[in-house]
Amino acid sequence: MTEKDFTITKLGKCIRQSPIKYSRAHAQKDVRFIDDNLKILYNNSFSSVNDELNHPEKVLLEKAGPREHIYFDPEMVHAGIVTCGGLCPGLNDVIRSVVRSLWYLYGVRKISGITYGYKGFLPEYGYPAKELNPDVVDQIQETGGSILGTSRGGADIPRIVDALEKKKLNILFTIGGDGTQRGALAISEEAARRGLDISIIGIPKTIDNDISYVSKSFGFDTAVEKAVDAVRTAHTEAKSVHNGIGLVKIMGRESGFITAHTTLAISNVNFTLVPEVDFSLDGENGFLRKLEERLAEKNHAVILVAEGAGQKLMAESALKDESGNKKLEDIGLFLKEQITEYLLSRKVNFTMKYVDPGYMIRASVAASIDSIYCARLGAHAVHAAMSGRTAMLISQWNNAFVHIPISMAVSKRNLIDPDGSLWRDVLESTQQPDDMY
Amino acid sequence: MTEKDFTITKLGKCIRQSPIKYSRAHAQKDVRFIDDNLKILYNNSFSSVNDELNHPEKVLLEKAGPREHIYFDPEMVHAGIVTCGGLCPGLNDVIRSVVRSLWYLYGVRKISGITYGYKGFLPEYGYPAKELNPDVVDQIQETGGSILGTSRGGADIPRIVDALEKKKLNILFTIGGDGTQRGALAISEEAARRGLDISIIGIPKTIDNDISYVSKSFGFDTAVEKAVDAVRTAHTEAKSVHNGIGLVKIMGRESGFITAHTTLAISNVNFTLVPEVDFSLDGENGFLRKLEERLAEKNHAVILVAEGAGQKLMAESALKDESGNKKLEDIGLFLKEQITEYLLSRKVNFTMKYVDPGYMIRASVAASIDSIYCARLGAHAVHAAMSGRTAMLISQWNNAFVHIPISMAVSKRNLIDPDGSLWRDVLESTQQPDDMY
Amino acid sequence: MTEKDFTITKLGKCIRQSPIKYSRAHAQKDVRFIDDNLKILYNNSFSSVNDELNHPEKVLLEKAGPREHIYFDPEMVHAGIVTCGGLCPGLNDVIRSVVRSLWYLYGVRKISGITYGYKGFLPEYGYPAKELNPDVVDQIQETGGSILGTSRGGADIPRIVDALEKKKLNILFTIGGDGTQRGALAISEEAARRGLDISIIGIPKTIDNDISYVSKSFGFDTAVEKAVDAVRTAHTEAKSVHNGIGLVKIMGRESGFITAHTTLAISNVNFTLVPEVDFSLDGENGFLRKLEERLAEKNHAVILVAEGAGQKLMAESALKDESGNKKLEDIGLFLKEQITEYLLSRKVNFTMKYVDPGYMIRASVAASIDSIYCARLGAHAVHAAMSGRTAMLISQWNNAFVHIPISMAVSKRNLIDPDGSLWRDVLESTQQPDDMY
Amino acid sequence: MTEKDFTITKLGKCIRQSPIKYSRAHAQKDVRFIDDNLKILYNNSFSSVNDELNHPEKVLLEKAGPREHIYFDPEMVHAGIVTCGGLCPGLNDVIRSVVRSLWYLYGVRKISGITYGYKGFLPEYGYPAKELNPDVVDQIQETGGSILGTSRGGADIPRIVDALEKKKLNILFTIGGDGTQRGALAISEEAARRGLDISIIGIPKTIDNDISYVSKSFGFDTAVEKAVDAVRTAHTEAKSVHNGIGLVKIMGRESGFITAHTTLAISNVNFTLVPEVDFSLDGENGFLRKLEERLAEKNHAVILVAEGAGQKLMAESALKDESGNKKLEDIGLFLKEQITEYLLSRKVNFTMKYVDPGYMIRASVAASIDSIYCARLGAHAVHAAMSGRTAMLISQWNNAFVHIPISMAVSKRNLIDPDGSLWRDVLESTQQPDDMY
Repeated sequence: MTEKDFTITKLGKCIRQSPIKYSRAHAQKDVRFIDDNLKILYNNSFSSVNDELNHPEKVLLEKAGPREHIYFDPEMVHAGIVTCGGLCPGLNDVIRSVVRSLWYLYGVRKISGITYGYKGFLPEYGYPAKELNPDVVDQIQETGGSILGTSRGGADIPRIVDALEKKKLNILFTIGGDGTQRGALAISEEAARRGLDISIIGIPKTIDNDISYVSKSFGFDTAVEKAVDAVRTAHTEAKSVHNGIGLVKIMGRESGFITAHTTLAISNVNFTLVPEVDFSLDGENGFLRKLEERLAEKNHAVILVAEGAGQKLMAESALKDESGNKKLEDIGLFLKEQITEYLLSRKVNFTMKYVDPGYMIRASVAASIDSIYCARLGAHAVHAAMSGRTAMLISQWNNAFVHIPISMAVSKRNLIDPDGSLWRDVLESTQQPDDMY
Repeated sequence: MTEKDFTITKLGKCIRQSPIKYSRAHAQKDVRFIDDNLKILYNNSFSSVNDELNHPEKVLLEKAGPREHIYFDPEMVHAGIVTCGGLCPGLNDVIRSVVRSLWYLYGVRKISGITYGYKGFLPEYGYPAKELNPDVVDQIQETGGSILGTSRGGADIPRIVDALEKKKLNILFTIGGDGTQRGALAISEEAARRGLDISIIGIPKTIDNDISYVSKSFGFDTAVEKAVDAVRTAHTEAKSVHNGIGLVKIMGRESGFITAHTTLAISNVNFTLVPEVDFSLDGENGFLRKLEERLAEKNHAVILVAEGAGQKLMAESALKDESGNKKLEDIGLFLKEQITEYLLSRKVNFTMKYVDPGYMIRASVAASIDSIYCARLGAHAVHAAMSGRTAMLISQWNNAFVHIPISMAVSKRNLIDPDGSLWRDVLESTQQPDDMY
Repeated sequence: MTEKDFTITKLGKCIRQSPIKYSRAHAQKDVRFIDDNLKILYNNSFSSVNDELNHPEKVLLEKAGPREHIYFDPEMVHAGIVTCGGLCPGLNDVIRSVVRSLWYLYGVRKISGITYGYKGFLPEYGYPAKELNPDVVDQIQETGGSILGTSRGGADIPRIVDALEKKKLNILFTIGGDGTQRGALAISEEAARRGLDISIIGIPKTIDNDISYVSKSFGFDTAVEKAVDAVRTAHTEAKSVHNGIGLVKIMGRESGFITAHTTLAISNVNFTLVPEVDFSLDGENGFLRKLEERLAEKNHAVILVAEGAGQKLMAESALKDESGNKKLEDIGLFLKEQITEYLLSRKVNFTMKYVDPGYMIRASVAASIDSIYCARLGAHAVHAAMSGRTAMLISQWNNAFVHIPISMAVSKRNLIDPDGSLWRDVLESTQQPDDMY
Repeated sequence: MTEKDFTITKLGKCIRQSPIKYSRAHAQKDVRFIDDNLKILYNNSFSSVNDELNHPEKVLLEKAGPREHIYFDPEMVHAGIVTCGGLCPGLNDVIRSVVRSLWYLYGVRKISGITYGYKGFLPEYGYPAKELNPDVVDQIQETGGSILGTSRGGADIPRIVDALEKKKLNILFTIGGDGTQRGALAISEEAARRGLDISIIGIPKTIDNDISYVSKSFGFDTAVEKAVDAVRTAHTEAKSVHNGIGLVKIMGRESGFITAHTTLAISNVNFTLVPEVDFSLDGENGFLRKLEERLAEKNHAVILVAEGAGQKLMAESALKDESGNKKLEDIGLFLKEQITEYLLSRKVNFTMKYVDPGYMIRASVAASIDSIYCARLGAHAVHAAMSGRTAMLISQWNNAFVHIPISMAVSKRNLIDPDGSLWRDVLESTQQPDDMY
């Protein structure tokens, strides 16, 4: 990985004066505009015995923000916004910020909301675009979901680019996850191939927080707040009966960040199970044995499991199942079954409550801390677009907003480091064994 | 039903002066003590063409409150408190109020919390009692659940009375539903048979609000608040995709009060299904047809179903199912399946989200309005017990606290009147057809 | 007071069939329509030694609800809605319910929102009316305040009736307190004088819950929830320092209902001061002495005072103040000063935190329990208007919706009975002396 | 500023093996222990035209976390915890985490809570210490405030060190702001002078977020959430009347971080006033003129002011005030007066609501995101103490936990950069003029 990998594509030279007026008399005239040369160091952790110049991951990221000179003539801009994939708290905040920034900062007056995800570009669905302006988006942040609607799939690149051409869109904001941003990259490549002057700016959305080069994705803090409510509930249920077990399943297909943070937030969790750390059910120090010990000692237990945890166990279990029944696909229900079977076999009386708060998390309104983040993401995305950048994502990294090439962001996933400090703090909180085997 | 049916059993004469000091100089000296002759009219609805004396349900209920003379010597009282059945918001508020009222108002110093329901009386479980005082209960209302723990079953009457004798309890507060109060009645009868001087006072707990002669059970308002959150979520999910369906199942085994009130609170519900009102799936005006029409018109729909709704349909469906597979027991999952099958057969694209917020409702902390109610229920239960009443429940009826014989309260259930004003308001809110057949 | 006093004025005969279709095949055809003869007994409390016929307050109230025959032709209706006075949680819920009920139940299509209270009728202000329909009011219940705006004053009756004539309004819903409803009564009288066929239906709004013949006014439960938050805060502050005093002032100009209910809800309050119960500052058993004792014993104290409490004390204090300085008008600040002075003179170290959460209560969104109530109030108001009733309020009394002549409702105020059970429960909770003199 | 300035003082060599067992077989054995050589770069922003070696602020901060070898023998440790100054959400979370980390991770069994701040060390106050263990702190994070109590002042260094000697404390955690940490530094210096082996570890508490070298102080996010509620209220009030003005004053004596973030979170604020940016009242483009223009255009306005804003204006106003009246000390009340005077002079009708939610913010329970942060701060503080470090603060910087010498942290304050991106985003959100003169 070299610095070049992080070079941002630009549509052309910025020769137009920005319409934003920053006028503090006592400051340098351009101090609030961001110079293109400003960079943020990707990895700021060093071992002082080595000189930091030798640091293996010295990568500089371009700093985001308003440029003094811009690429597009605001009067000629027709911007589009599309939201794809599952819901995530803050979608409406981002939409609102993009619309308001285009309108109030740059004077753009033509903004189209593409409805129901990428499918909104495809004529066969007949989903009409929605005209957006500050009035339309005025209070939308008070509601969860996306006012544009969303869908999965529909990433038919050539036909999406046809639609862009037909609608004469020259800026497109794609709000979505990994798959959506791969699509956005492909769209920008196809547009370049056709010689179209279109800026494609991604705003990464992943409630699981697993997009690379993104410190924290929007909606994550809200998700943790809501997950904490669910765990609090499960803990109350578990403590209110003898040998009560509260089993909570939350999102986290590939990574357990929400699970880990929720554990730290409430510290009533006794077992935290994430995709990044394997465990066995039956082993000497396996999960079931440890759960039984916990019940014997404290008469209640709370288990928090990410949906992507224990996939191997389910696969093994399916193999063992000679009758050919289909594999259980839900780790929560799988664990519920396994725990029940095991404790019955051990003649332990217990009462288990299973909580799956998934949709209540995804559809909730953004907490203030996420609203702030969304507002700033949206504004920075607009600045990037107006400067003619393309094929990039807006991200916050080490407290600065930066530009990341989509190609880098989708090249790998963010995962909990099982040897790092976050997982260490989780183990310290739950006091579960380091290796449950 | 005559007035006699509502006569409250008393252990004996009240000859002891109450230790409570009400001393407003400018008022009559006993004005805050309640006279035994004060009554509340059960049914206050009349048709003015008939004289109200002819009213078929003229029943007078005894007014609750502190009596100037009491039965028990506070120094000799050993009171017990037991919580049974499922969780309900406000349990800890009630426990707290009973303890504080006994302690501060009457000077009772011996209060035992029986743990894990009626089973806490049975030696084989070995659940130790918990000594209670104002310090122990100081902040418990800030947490959901019951600090005493709860369980189902265990109503082994003779052995419970053995335990009462052994512990020398002379007052027992039973916090629980229908079954618990039947148990309480049997306990009071067995105690009478043995000539024991024990007051058994029930505090009705039913999140479903279906105990007769109880206007509103504690925890109900909190349950509605939480159910509204779940419906809001489902509505957000439904609106955020094309032909989105939000299906929410909430509690309500025999009655749909929570379902109905939630519908009125949020008015985003399009179909409200309750145990009291039958409906068909397949009929000309059946539910599935109406759902399809709704989707065609508005592209999203929200369905709120009480767990006890549509039981007949599941029974029929099980009969039809020749393969002998076991009957689906969950109306939510049953509807999910039926809707999916039907819409696929009609080639309607849709996305359904299923939300089951049950445990998150039951285990939540009481809202303030419920806390007030619980605080007052507990105090009135203590007044009733100290006056030597037994085999009765504390209830609020038409804004007054009253005494209800347990025998009457368990004689029938509270149900939504499908021809009454509550269901009328639900129909007006959802605009669903009156008869879905 | 006789039954006649509660007779509702009607504009004329109801000869038109209601467009509402209630069609339950298995029920009597008109069972959901309300018969004009149905009545609710006002006072349902009896002393069983007297026959209830002799009860001094036997008053029957007309039951509210949809009538089978209505007065107005929906196509000819032009309805107006006006909100007056201070904010109250639930205003938007009521507006929404009125609009939806008119539109969906009766097919009324002409609904005008009068803006900024009665002033919206007066041409010199130039406040434009707002056209209302279900789309406009779709999500307004998610926001506090009133979408119509409000103001105090402006009750220039003849010119308001001029405006009604000019706008050809034939139904007017007045949402407001005591003063607003007096205005509404005057409007209906002036309209009658001019021979206008206008129905004036009041929806009582008083966050203090002090309108007569109204069990509980909308917004009250929400206000208590929010007041509880403020007291919790004050309690936290008080306990976190040595001799901490938390002093919370909330609304309640004439009555202390919010104060009393808040006290019961949180039970961390040590002194509850309301307009209905006098107290002295300096007496042997006066408030300041008792506060000092409390601090000596527990090292912290929480005081909750209604804004209308202690007015006499402030008047006396002003008289004593020879320097002619103007009277302190705020009991909260007055108490703060008096406590400070007294404790300093007693050489008691202390830290006082003063919390005035007024606006945060009034402007908040309605809790679900209030939303339900508002939805039902609005619907019943519409039914009353369509049946040609006028000069009346919609009220809930003993769990039934009823019609109350405005003249009766404004004839006296609702107050806490210092000898009744609510104040008794407050004293039991705070353990403050019955008479602080 | 050189790297040396950031060197952390240590009491001695770490020769004892840590009792923490990190045992992942597949990982290097010590991978979760932090090497003393690990550093975090303070400033990660570069201009790519310059080589980063020349960066003016190249400073490396020591990474926090558990060390494989520790200084103190856990069995000999007597740890103390003290909380000083005003309340802040999360205090109980920090206390809880420190206690649990000492107890569960290191096996420390002697932990004393010093009550009511530094005064708790001084015998004349007679405030008894509180023995702490996991049971005592089990649920304290569910309540606001500090279970230890707090106070201002009392930093009598020699006598505090006398008390440390007498109590045989060898670790002290000081949770407090600037002043508290200056005290902690002085304590550590005095202890060193006396040759005492005491580790003093500060945990920075400043709801205003103005301690240097601390990215974000705990409680800050919660404060913003609560401040947003207050602004939402003010906005509702302002919009609900004609020419309504909502004026909200929040904390921020020296810096406006809460004010700025709240503005970004809700984006209904029209004027944000902070200590870092001066403004005039009367100027051509002064605040009052701009407010009048806003009212003329939109008929309502929301103003959010930090308590430390506009101090110069109050000073000037006091000078002008010949009558010698004492200076108004509260910018909120001062602005209220100035606005009223100005608008009256301009004959503009308006209604102003003033909201001061200060105590409700400080005393609230921590939001989950803050709970996580507090839990991690506490654990890292314990690791630092056990390794024999002293005279330092725990801080999070660029997403890593680090050690900061107290001397550096108190050397200057964190302020909003009026030319930086945060203030730029505020201006873009409010659309207030850059310079109000």
